[in-house]
Amino acid sequence: MSVRERVLEMKAVSPSVAAAGKGVRNEALRLAACSLREHQQEIFDANREDLERAQENGIAPAIMKRLKFDAHKLADCLAGIESLIGLEDPAGKVTLHRQLDEGLVLKRVTVPIGVIGIIFEARPDALVQISCLCIKSGNCAVLKGGKETASTNKVLFDLIAEAALKAGLPAGCLLQVSAHSEIDELLECDDCVDLLIPRGSNAFVRYIMDHTRIPVMGHSDGICHTYVDKAADFDLAIPVLIDAKTQYTAACNATETLLVHRDIAETFLPKAAKALGEAGVRLRGTAEVARILEAAAKKGGIAPEDVMEETDFRTEYLDLVLSVKLVDSVEEACAHINRYGSHHTDCIITEDDAAAERFMTLTDSAGVYRNCSTRFADGFRYGFGAEVGISTSKLHARGPVGLDGLVTYKYLLEGTGQTVADYASGKKQFHFQSIPT
Amino acid sequence: MSVRERVLEMKAVSPSVAAAGKGVRNEALRLAACSLREHQQEIFDANREDLERAQENGIAPAIMKRLKFDAHKLADCLAGIESLIGLEDPAGKVTLHRQLDEGLVLKRVTVPIGVIGIIFEARPDALVQISCLCIKSGNCAVLKGGKETASTNKVLFDLIAEAALKAGLPAGCLLQVSAHSEIDELLECDDCVDLLIPRGSNAFVRYIMDHTRIPVMGHSDGICHTYVDKAADFDLAIPVLIDAKTQYTAACNATETLLVHRDIAETFLPKAAKALGEAGVRLRGTAEVARILEAAAKKGGIAPEDVMEETDFRTEYLDLVLSVKLVDSVEEACAHINRYGSHHTDCIITEDDAAAERFMTLTDSAGVYRNCSTRFADGFRYGFGAEVGISTSKLHARGPVGLDGLVTYKYLLEGTGQTVADYASGKKQFHFQSIPT
Repeated sequence: MSVRERVLEMKAVSPSVAAAGKGVRNEALRLAACSLREHQQEIFDANREDLERAQENGIAPAIMKRLKFDAHKLADCLAGIESLIGLEDPAGKVTLHRQLDEGLVLKRVTVPIGVIGIIFEARPDALVQISCLCIKSGNCAVLKGGKETASTNKVLFDLIAEAALKAGLPAGCLLQVSAHSEIDELLECDDCVDLLIPRGSNAFVRYIMDHTRIPVMGHSDGICHTYVDKAADFDLAIPVLIDAKTQYTAACNATETLLVHRDIAETFLPKAAKALGEAGVRLRGTAEVARILEAAAKKGGIAPEDVMEETDFRTEYLDLVLSVKLVDSVEEACAHINRYGSHHTDCIITEDDAAAERFMTLTDSAGVYRNCSTRFADGFRYGFGAEVGISTSKLHARGPVGLDGLVTYKYLLEGTGQTVADYASGKKQFHFQSIPT
Repeated sequence: MSVRERVLEMKAVSPSVAAAGKGVRNEALRLAACSLREHQQEIFDANREDLERAQENGIAPAIMKRLKFDAHKLADCLAGIESLIGLEDPAGKVTLHRQLDEGLVLKRVTVPIGVIGIIFEARPDALVQISCLCIKSGNCAVLKGGKETASTNKVLFDLIAEAALKAGLPAGCLLQVSAHSEIDELLECDDCVDLLIPRGSNAFVRYIMDHTRIPVMGHSDGICHTYVDKAADFDLAIPVLIDAKTQYTAACNATETLLVHRDIAETFLPKAAKALGEAGVRLRGTAEVARILEAAAKKGGIAPEDVMEETDFRTEYLDLVLSVKLVDSVEEACAHINRYGSHHTDCIITEDDAAAERFMTLTDSAGVYRNCSTRFADGFRYGFGAEVGISTSKLHARGPVGLDGLVTYKYLLEGTGQTVADYASGKKQFHFQSIPT
């Protein structure tokens, strides 16, 4: 069967998956956790095969680390499933309940989205995490993992799919595709896949977004800014900036650009450059920034090749490198961020409430912060319990997405024979009346 | 300036539009209403020009009616603006408020989406309605109306844009494009238009959806079903069915297919056929349905050319024509609806609570009804006060969309110097604590 035929079958079965109660879904997760624990040796053996093959193929050590699925990763996965079981059911919530007229009652209820395609590179733990999120939320999932961990993925998938069946979920609610050519087939399924979630490098996510008409949840870029306002407390600004830049440089929420108010540039920049230099950060910046640092003759200046033009500011380093630019006002900082950023997460450092409010209003990003590290942009740190991903889209879900991002809603209307003609003619009138939910 | 350049400018100004208070936005609406009233003669004159040109071009009478903008249409528009002013501000609502730790507070606040493109055919009243919805919700709008009413649109647009400026909204918050070639330019602006709302025929909406990467809110098809279950009350079923099919056949929420449980087909079908025939409805149906009606020899049978094959059921008539098919169960009805419908609005007629619940759970549509007309699918009838459109998408907004469909949200995080490193090292711990909103 082609990918399309299999996904069409999944689409047909998806309403029954959505109809399965939360008891069945939590039981599937419980059984999956048990099974992963019981078959851990099998999983580790399969992963060893993958790692050996990867080594033969000369895969880079940084990637090798991501391919590895060991006892530590398994424990993380099991803890994740355990906490997922404890989370509130995202489906079945009544978000509007209203009597339109006598005997005519409208309800809006959250329901699973339906069929979700997940395409991820490398990390086999992503397969466990995302298939469990789909089970919890009542969705069907088509999973495509990286070929580097094909053996590990196959064992993990089979164990989870078997657990789902055993708990009573319909056959065909989970599907794994493995050939690379099948990705393109999946991207064509815009009539039977409701949502795609790509997990991987920016180039990978961009490729997915550019090659499908299925809605994509995610982000391809994370160009985050920290703006140090003229009313900033430097003792607060510098540690926050160091954290935002260095605590985990490969993360999408790491700061890539420092904006500084021109009024404080000569005092703040040398201090910041010293601290950033000590943290191993290479600075890039405008000619003006370079001059100020040169004049201060402090450690952490800007090399001639690192003097930047305006358009260079659209750069995501994911490394110990930081772009620096001066601005004249909060408004100019916001304009720069809205133009060159990726609408992900941006922060102002200031003691001035009015400036902060202006910044938080004018910055068009999923997360707008004051006086803390941009690295806080994360579902777990927001207290969502589980993270589906971070979205820079403005529609559906924005910012860190919890389980709520995997549901939509439908309107249920129960009547007793009402016709629209009676309301159009004035024979009957609506009297909207909220019913407490 | 090209459309793209103008929309890029609008994008830059959109955060200031979003930042304008609801007072300014309501004042813009009030001034727009005044101005439309004051300049009504100018509007009617422009419309007369459009109608004369249309007549010369031999436009069909049904379309002529939609081009017309007279005192009656103006009164409707003014009443619409009046009610819009009275509606709650969709932006600025705090939907989550949580202390993550001492001095680290997260808020989720609704904000305007940003730049919305609206492309509509014919009806000049759509220009008024949709630009006012955008003003109310703090969005910028690019408007492209039908060329048939270019003169009317120009007058209406200029009056509304002038009112917006006068109220204090930034210049460039509303933009009108008029050449047809500019539609394609607009469809290319996926980096500066956040949402497209097409209004017009199904073919037109389908064209827009097929030619842009900008998210589109709307629906191209409305293939709605009424399923008469074996436990249906016929006296309730027939008037509801007649309303669903005939009250306004051109609407997307009119029923296009009647599904009937096989157990009651021989008693129900002849009664229904008689009533539908009297209402002027032509029946199409499967060979089985044709045989039953022929045997009953009642008025309203099926002509030989109207005997249907399975795939014919994917037809939207928007006319006094109805497809009829028999099914063996609620499950089969749902499977048919999910496969051949457009996930818009579908109804079960039954006195059996268990059957109704099964139907409402398994039908994957924006609206799932029991014992009332599918024609109720409408923002005004749901009590939303204003209607942006009806969406058959599952993401962002589904079903009839009120003003809430024109906002997204952002996360605001206010700290006092927190770094992620302190939480990663265990030096600090999150203690999530809800703050009542």
